[in-house]
Amino acid sequence: MTSKGVSWRPSGIVTLLTDFGLSDAYVGVMKGVIYGRGGAGLKVEDLTHAIPPQDVAAAAFHLAHAWRFYPEGTVHVAVCDPGVGTEREVLVALHAGHAFLAPDNGLLGPVLGEGARVLALDVERFALARRSRTFHGRDVFAPAAAALAAGLDPLSAGRAHPSWRHAGFPAPEADGEAWVATVLSVDRFGNLVGNVPAERVAEGRWRAVVRDRRAPLLGAYGEAPRGGLLALVDSYDLVELAVRDGNAAEELGLGPGDRFRLERDA
Amino acid sequence: MTSKGVSWRPSGIVTLLTDFGLSDAYVGVMKGVIYGRGGAGLKVEDLTHAIPPQDVAAAAFHLAHAWRFYPEGTVHVAVCDPGVGTEREVLVALHAGHAFLAPDNGLLGPVLGEGARVLALDVERFALARRSRTFHGRDVFAPAAAALAAGLDPLSAGRAHPSWRHAGFPAPEADGEAWVATVLSVDRFGNLVGNVPAERVAEGRWRAVVRDRRAPLLGAYGEAPRGGLLALVDSYDLVELAVRDGNAAEELGLGPGDRFRLERDA
Amino acid sequence: MTSKGVSWRPSGIVTLLTDFGLSDAYVGVMKGVIYGRGGAGLKVEDLTHAIPPQDVAAAAFHLAHAWRFYPEGTVHVAVCDPGVGTEREVLVALHAGHAFLAPDNGLLGPVLGEGARVLALDVERFALARRSRTFHGRDVFAPAAAALAAGLDPLSAGRAHPSWRHAGFPAPEADGEAWVATVLSVDRFGNLVGNVPAERVAEGRWRAVVRDRRAPLLGAYGEAPRGGLLALVDSYDLVELAVRDGNAAEELGLGPGDRFRLERDA
Repeated sequence: MTSKGVSWRPSGIVTLLTDFGLSDAYVGVMKGVIYGRGGAGLKVEDLTHAIPPQDVAAAAFHLAHAWRFYPEGTVHVAVCDPGVGTEREVLVALHAGHAFLAPDNGLLGPVLGEGARVLALDVERFALARRSRTFHGRDVFAPAAAALAAGLDPLSAGRAHPSWRHAGFPAPEADGEAWVATVLSVDRFGNLVGNVPAERVAEGRWRAVVRDRRAPLLGAYGEAPRGGLLALVDSYDLVELAVRDGNAAEELGLGPGDRFRLERDA
Repeated sequence: MTSKGVSWRPSGIVTLLTDFGLSDAYVGVMKGVIYGRGGAGLKVEDLTHAIPPQDVAAAAFHLAHAWRFYPEGTVHVAVCDPGVGTEREVLVALHAGHAFLAPDNGLLGPVLGEGARVLALDVERFALARRSRTFHGRDVFAPAAAALAAGLDPLSAGRAHPSWRHAGFPAPEADGEAWVATVLSVDRFGNLVGNVPAERVAEGRWRAVVRDRRAPLLGAYGEAPRGGLLALVDSYDLVELAVRDGNAAEELGLGPGDRFRLERDA
Repeated sequence: MTSKGVSWRPSGIVTLLTDFGLSDAYVGVMKGVIYGRGGAGLKVEDLTHAIPPQDVAAAAFHLAHAWRFYPEGTVHVAVCDPGVGTEREVLVALHAGHAFLAPDNGLLGPVLGEGARVLALDVERFALARRSRTFHGRDVFAPAAAALAAGLDPLSAGRAHPSWRHAGFPAPEADGEAWVATVLSVDRFGNLVGNVPAERVAEGRWRAVVRDRRAPLLGAYGEAPRGGLLALVDSYDLVELAVRDGNAAEELGLGPGDRFRLERDA
């Protein structure tokens, strides 16, 4: 039995998101354990492994915006775990038909919405026989993910843990009719993704103001002149700052935690 | 019905080639959409995601030399798309039993040979319900790829579009018996891959001349002394410049668009 | 028939470890060949492709510590091959129910234990019809891997080759009760992995000494103060040097081949 009376129906897919990078074999090793435990019929896919080391907020940002594009029944494993080897719990969650595994360090807070069921994983039940204190991705998360993907109900994989760290993203701040956005992420193109959802700027004309520069809120990169600064609703339905055919983060010298303003463009 | 009277027989494999990089979850999200639309039985593989941002020529180079090593029936998706969100068409093509999806920006020109059937994709038919204007990889290309991989005939996925951008690679220039090569690509080892096919230098002895240096055309890296400059027929049957156990691009200060000369070594 | 009288039972999984990087399509092309030859039902996974160019020792380190986490019957392909195109042999091996393919350049020495069966691959039998002299990953290793993964017994894929290069990792040096460790690898976090196995320091208290600094051997990163230097048994059961929430390799200025000392902490 699972939340809302719907049975857990695994898709056979496991996604991985870590700060392990791809220069070592750590990710490949996790996949080996998943296939060894759950069978070679499973499918393991990468969300990204380029989370900056120990940057739990970045891991939360990427997972929060990616998981819903996978089919229901997918198991999402996120390992960004500065506390590995200490007493921190591992969370197992069921939300909207998807399962989640992550350390209890704030990573899942912005990912899970109302109605999520969150437990503390029964680590001893899943861990490899020879468990290290440094690589729980391999020794705990991978075997637990294999069990879920092979059919085990996430809600039978742990015990109640009501105090899990569930804080979400910082909310955008209202300033009269304007919004003060906080940058949550910078993507490969240097686009600065803020925390203001598209619905806040859906009506009328808007502009971004940052470092004494103004940028119109446009509908596509191609509507700005080459090299021009613009604001845009991005693919995650968040307002971002971009430079057409350029790099806004470099040009403005901004990054995560920095702020910009969105105001009506009369 | 398809070209040459042969039915479209999908292999169940989709390849992805983009300029998205791997530091965000964009590629992982595309895979989620493909599995959600086409089923977890499909297989999605990466060609590369390290195309320099908006470098359509580099995307064309890599796709042109990679696709034929996949089984017939594979769907190749290439997204390097500076015009995303504007009026540019999306191409769907059938060539030699493979299907292709890419923006109509010149990317497919060097990829497709004579006899390719190229249409403008019926974007509305495949797009996700909530389509962004910045991430058609997820919202248009992924669901269309899923439909083709699951069996839809590419030739029924769009409408005639005879004006698609079909220019190929620059041709090597003849200079008497010699050839002037243009560098098309630099690989990870610093090898400079030019546009002269092996068949042009198949008979007799040849040498490369570049920046007052001469390098013999040899049969393998190991035939040059350590640190020695050589020319070589590479794995794509193109003549490249290399430094044994070194980096020719760095040592010569050359990159894409630069030239070198191939002449008979009497 | 195979070693120890156990039949070769392929898992259907192939792993790849190369120095090709991910900025070209080389790895994607290898996968295409494997699926084309062995069928789209196979599964090809990456261990890592970020081995420094031609660094055979690094390739050996990563493969030696990763392969055992895959299910029995997996085919492990390692291509780090400065001698490609010359007369060097390609090895095919069977060890502990896993199959291995790698050039005979020392790569497999530290990987295979006692009891491994090692042959020289019958290259002509597997190679693509048009074989290049620069990319045997595609032209030789991929088709041979496909054949093994599809069921061919590794011991029928080559001929006796008793002189294969089988040297292992450098052994740690004893100095009275202390050990002098050599750094084998640096991971993404800057942790310096040495060649002293955990069993050498299992009893009593130990410390590392390096560049006039002392660091206790602890049980987890979190037991050190932030920014503190520590020694730790890593996930491969080797003693590593780490800086909590920091980068030991950068802070100490050390890398592969450098040394540190492990001594009793009375």
